[in-house]
Amino acid sequence: MISSTYSYISSYEINGAFNSYGISEVVETKNAKFPVGTLVTSPYIRWEEQTVLPSSIAKDLTILPAEVRDSKIPLSAYIGVLGMHSFTAYGSLLDIGQPKAGETIYISAASGAVGQLVGQIARLKGLRVIGSVGSDDKVDYLLKELRFDAAFNYKKEKIVDSLRAAAPEGIDIYYENVGGEALEAALEVLKPHGRIIACGMVSGYNSGEGYNVKNLFQIVTKRLTIKGFLVVDFNEELNERFRKDVSEWILNGDIVYKEDITEGLDDAPEAFVGLFHGKNFGKALVKITDL
Amino acid sequence: MISSTYSYISSYEINGAFNSYGISEVVETKNAKFPVGTLVTSPYIRWEEQTVLPSSIAKDLTILPAEVRDSKIPLSAYIGVLGMHSFTAYGSLLDIGQPKAGETIYISAASGAVGQLVGQIARLKGLRVIGSVGSDDKVDYLLKELRFDAAFNYKKEKIVDSLRAAAPEGIDIYYENVGGEALEAALEVLKPHGRIIACGMVSGYNSGEGYNVKNLFQIVTKRLTIKGFLVVDFNEELNERFRKDVSEWILNGDIVYKEDITEGLDDAPEAFVGLFHGKNFGKALVKITDL
Repeated sequence: MISSTYSYISSYEINGAFNSYGISEVVETKNAKFPVGTLVTSPYIRWEEQTVLPSSIAKDLTILPAEVRDSKIPLSAYIGVLGMHSFTAYGSLLDIGQPKAGETIYISAASGAVGQLVGQIARLKGLRVIGSVGSDDKVDYLLKELRFDAAFNYKKEKIVDSLRAAAPEGIDIYYENVGGEALEAALEVLKPHGRIIACGMVSGYNSGEGYNVKNLFQIVTKRLTIKGFLVVDFNEELNERFRKDVSEWILNGDIVYKEDITEGLDDAPEAFVGLFHGKNFGKALVKITDL
Repeated sequence: MISSTYSYISSYEINGAFNSYGISEVVETKNAKFPVGTLVTSPYIRWEEQTVLPSSIAKDLTILPAEVRDSKIPLSAYIGVLGMHSFTAYGSLLDIGQPKAGETIYISAASGAVGQLVGQIARLKGLRVIGSVGSDDKVDYLLKELRFDAAFNYKKEKIVDSLRAAAPEGIDIYYENVGGEALEAALEVLKPHGRIIACGMVSGYNSGEGYNVKNLFQIVTKRLTIKGFLVVDFNEELNERFRKDVSEWILNGDIVYKEDITEGLDDAPEAFVGLFHGKNFGKALVKITDL
């Protein structure tokens, strides 16, 4: 039996609010691998204070090291800035992107859970960082809080024009989250031998019709490399480096992150509905109990 | 001054017939690097028996080793199956594609100068080879002479259906020469971690409008790698391996190739016009003189 503290609320599906990813403590157990007091993250968090889980799902529980209780980093970070999305960002940028100090990176959907961290890690690695987002508030956030070098609102400007202005000499890496027009613009401004880290491309996918990317031939003429990935492909060794590096960066203030925490189950339904009106800014979490 | 033997005729532009790529012998010289009797390939072959070249273009002449005169391989091969297109095929398949025995490769424009060699090298490396071409004659040629495992006429069948029939378990490598529908179909049948060697993609390019490739998101979901290249990026060491391997394969009969040689300048104009009616089958060459 687990007692849950934080539950992540997602707008993907209604079920995703009530049966979600979160962090819990084992309070009763019949499995020696999970003694009482163990902290776990799992996708089996319900909107209830205590949950009984069958032993068959034990493989999906991730045990957190005991020292996280004494860390200055709050527990909620382990399903946010130290969770799956951030590992995605860290692993793909470093493993696939092979970023070098002095290079320029462009990140689409840059205020998303993945994009935020990609941008900040890139900055820490000495890259010039450009991001696109869908509102002026988010542009401000990228520039002032995440310390991007340049940012623009793709709803107000042509992406390719903004990119040319922000990076007159072109970009070395494109961190691809959306596909469509952003991909087309990136192909236009990538330097020879540039790299595309393909994380998303959901824009064309969701529309069902795709987007006519008219300059794919630049993959050949510029000798580009495009590489898709799923976070499950990254290994445990990379995961350990990720936790170590990002924990250090958080404690040093080198990386910032935003959470939007609703206290208690009573207010949770309202927080869930708020997601559909874009009321949250940062990762939406419900704090179910204190641990 | 050079005396030219073979001149490659291309249909790209009229000028390309009269000022083309070919093979010549140095017959008079003021440059110690090019003694009389040296064989060179160069892009400065004209439809004339002897040509005076300025020393400023010496850097664009490629000296052939003396032993090619004694080889059983005809000189014409050095601007064909042992020339630039074939080096493109060899370098990109082996260096970018990293083919492994037992894998399946699909090649678009498979009867072209590059595609032919890619298919035959892939076969020699133990791959299952599938090609698409634009006529039934070419299908026959791939199956019977080049010994492809499967081939189809993309003008008569939907590419994705033909690919599914020829490779029910999917393909590991797509050798991309044309873009558009072939790229879309390949994305559909590529296995996870598949690779795309991006050599051409001229189909969408030439139309000016591009082709709406609707499933680019599969780059992410299947964790594909796409890599563009230009032959100039390959190094001399690879070039030497290429000449050695391909010469051996030609002498063993492991690789076949087709030339369409017109004897003498008198018939050259007709051969040139014939290109526009698809009359040639194989690399179109004019034999200007005997060497």
